[in-house]
Amino acid sequence: METARLETFSDGVFAIATTLLILDVKLPTGSSVTHGLLQIWPSYAAYAISFLTIGIMWINHHSIFRQIDRLDRTFLTISVVFLMVVAFVPFPTRVLADHLHHDATAAAFFYGLTMTVMACMYACLWFYAATGRRLIAADADQRVVSGISRSYLPGVPLYALAAASAFLSSWLALGLFAGIALFYVLESSLFGRAS
Amino acid sequence: METARLETFSDGVFAIATTLLILDVKLPTGSSVTHGLLQIWPSYAAYAISFLTIGIMWINHHSIFRQIDRLDRTFLTISVVFLMVVAFVPFPTRVLADHLHHDATAAAFFYGLTMTVMACMYACLWFYAATGRRLIAADADQRVVSGISRSYLPGVPLYALAAASAFLSSWLALGLFAGIALFYVLESSLFGRAS
Amino acid sequence: METARLETFSDGVFAIATTLLILDVKLPTGSSVTHGLLQIWPSYAAYAISFLTIGIMWINHHSIFRQIDRLDRTFLTISVVFLMVVAFVPFPTRVLADHLHHDATAAAFFYGLTMTVMACMYACLWFYAATGRRLIAADADQRVVSGISRSYLPGVPLYALAAASAFLSSWLALGLFAGIALFYVLESSLFGRAS
Amino acid sequence: METARLETFSDGVFAIATTLLILDVKLPTGSSVTHGLLQIWPSYAAYAISFLTIGIMWINHHSIFRQIDRLDRTFLTISVVFLMVVAFVPFPTRVLADHLHHDATAAAFFYGLTMTVMACMYACLWFYAATGRRLIAADADQRVVSGISRSYLPGVPLYALAAASAFLSSWLALGLFAGIALFYVLESSLFGRAS
Repeated sequence: METARLETFSDGVFAIATTLLILDVKLPTGSSVTHGLLQIWPSYAAYAISFLTIGIMWINHHSIFRQIDRLDRTFLTISVVFLMVVAFVPFPTRVLADHLHHDATAAAFFYGLTMTVMACMYACLWFYAATGRRLIAADADQRVVSGISRSYLPGVPLYALAAASAFLSSWLALGLFAGIALFYVLESSLFGRAS
Repeated sequence: METARLETFSDGVFAIATTLLILDVKLPTGSSVTHGLLQIWPSYAAYAISFLTIGIMWINHHSIFRQIDRLDRTFLTISVVFLMVVAFVPFPTRVLADHLHHDATAAAFFYGLTMTVMACMYACLWFYAATGRRLIAADADQRVVSGISRSYLPGVPLYALAAASAFLSSWLALGLFAGIALFYVLESSLFGRAS
Repeated sequence: METARLETFSDGVFAIATTLLILDVKLPTGSSVTHGLLQIWPSYAAYAISFLTIGIMWINHHSIFRQIDRLDRTFLTISVVFLMVVAFVPFPTRVLADHLHHDATAAAFFYGLTMTVMACMYACLWFYAATGRRLIAADADQRVVSGISRSYLPGVPLYALAAASAFLSSWLALGLFAGIALFYVLESSLFGRAS
Repeated sequence: METARLETFSDGVFAIATTLLILDVKLPTGSSVTHGLLQIWPSYAAYAISFLTIGIMWINHHSIFRQIDRLDRTFLTISVVFLMVVAFVPFPTRVLADHLHHDATAAAFFYGLTMTVMACMYACLWFYAATGRRLIAADADQRVVSGISRSYLPGVPLYALAAASAFLSSWLALGLFAGIALFYVLESSLFGRAS
């Protein structure tokens, strides 16, 4: 009950950030529809990766709030900063989509940087709550709590690695961003366990 | 209760995708207001068809969630992909509105393709849940479940047919998209039965 | 309970349509900030009138749903069409803001036309439900129901009159749109009574 | 219960206004991605300040609604006007981001003016409800109510001062806007007490 208002705030930001992504998919001017639709495939790829990443994060966000039953000032501050990063995602997505054919390294690195910061804030959110069961409900199963902690550990290094890989090849970076999203879709060990 | 978070996620995406459609209705520059307002009637048509299609789909989505009372990993994955397609709809709508006077075949086919994929994901969602009553609530009436299954069967072939008809005539395709939306508004057998 | 999904759908569309209005307030290029901010006052006026109109309509919408406790197919169809008109409002608002100094008659008439259609669909919604207490809850006070009916009767003719007045003067029309919004803010007899 | 519909309306407007802010962060054309990303740092600053300001306001908004258990016509009118100002914030944010290198005084003053009006409407909202415990729940602790009142008093003069400081230096004003947001994040005395 006490966490309800924060969950509502978060749900709104997640849903809108996800749906706004489509506004940045645009047909180029001066080419036929068919040609244009094929030419902008980087926009589709960027759209799909960002949508899946935020979508999965939203689902997991609900899972962690089932373990938490109180808030404090620090947790709230972390939450607002985390959501500020989530709502920022449409910008690097647009930059990536617009520059995948040109100046792709910088765009892919910037995208990866944003994802890394987001994963970082998300980990902060959870580990602040979970350390010493600070905000964890009394009746929450410690095995579930530890399981969530385990599944969140690789997030930050994975995204940092994917971001850095942009300097080798922006295509590799893109593949890794897609791979991490897919990994969290398929694994969802968190969610599966929580259900 | 367990499905609540997914319903909230879905509700947000449906509502925002629908409302964003208006951002793509724009007055052409360099003509009088009256002339411009009349000239962009394809934008109104595309707006209305997409709004009605998503609106009805939302209503039916709530109906199917009254039959379902648990989730699993596969169902969640299908859901996220389905919502990714719903949130994509404003893009083909814009393409269709901008090209109904010019290069209309490709635009209408692309619109129909998106609708077909959306109908397909929607059918996957339902049939995954309903087959062998996998995720169906124990107290759900089998006649209602079978009724829903029956009413969803024609969706995919109807949209595929409408998409293909764009190669004959983009006007015919547009008429069929409108017709299918109208059919689901008027019929809503699903909803009527559930009420 | 049965009406909850429709209320959620409606709430989403109302909130988003209202908030999207700001995207159309834009500083003109090629002038100083101070000059530009003063020059676009028609944008502020259009923003305020549309925001207040939809805001009040949303509040009243909740009031009528406290009298209603069931749905049918026709009511749902009317609802979806009504929301399609609500979500359409940002477009005529933008047209009005852009053309208040030039070609204002057509813009003001189009705005008024949209408002008239919206008022009309809103009245349809209520009178369909209220006639013969078709969808009215058994324990709803008939005096409240009749009071709501009385307060909705003037909406359509008022907006039609304001729209027609654009041919005399677009300023008069603007004043009347503002006046009607203000009237429903201050009066809110509906809401006052319902509280 | 009676206040639920107003809270839903408010939640929607807060969440959407916050998330729309990212649409105004844009890469300049004609420069490399790296150079462009660095060049638009005023956009990031404006984004962060506005996001934090609205985010904190939302959280506090929920706190005050825990003390309130009824509405009246005047309170509703104040609420709609308040939300109209909240939904307006993306516009001065965009103006500030676009003009921090050029014509910054006017842009910073306009931003500060909007914040002052928002703080003012927010104070109206609370003091109207709290004066003589007009709309306060019978079981609300008077010490909490007085604490909220105390913490809201400095808002309007602080923002007015920050707005005025734009005439000395737009950088000073920007710093003060950030400082006030940070102050309310860290203090959140309201929230801390309410938890």
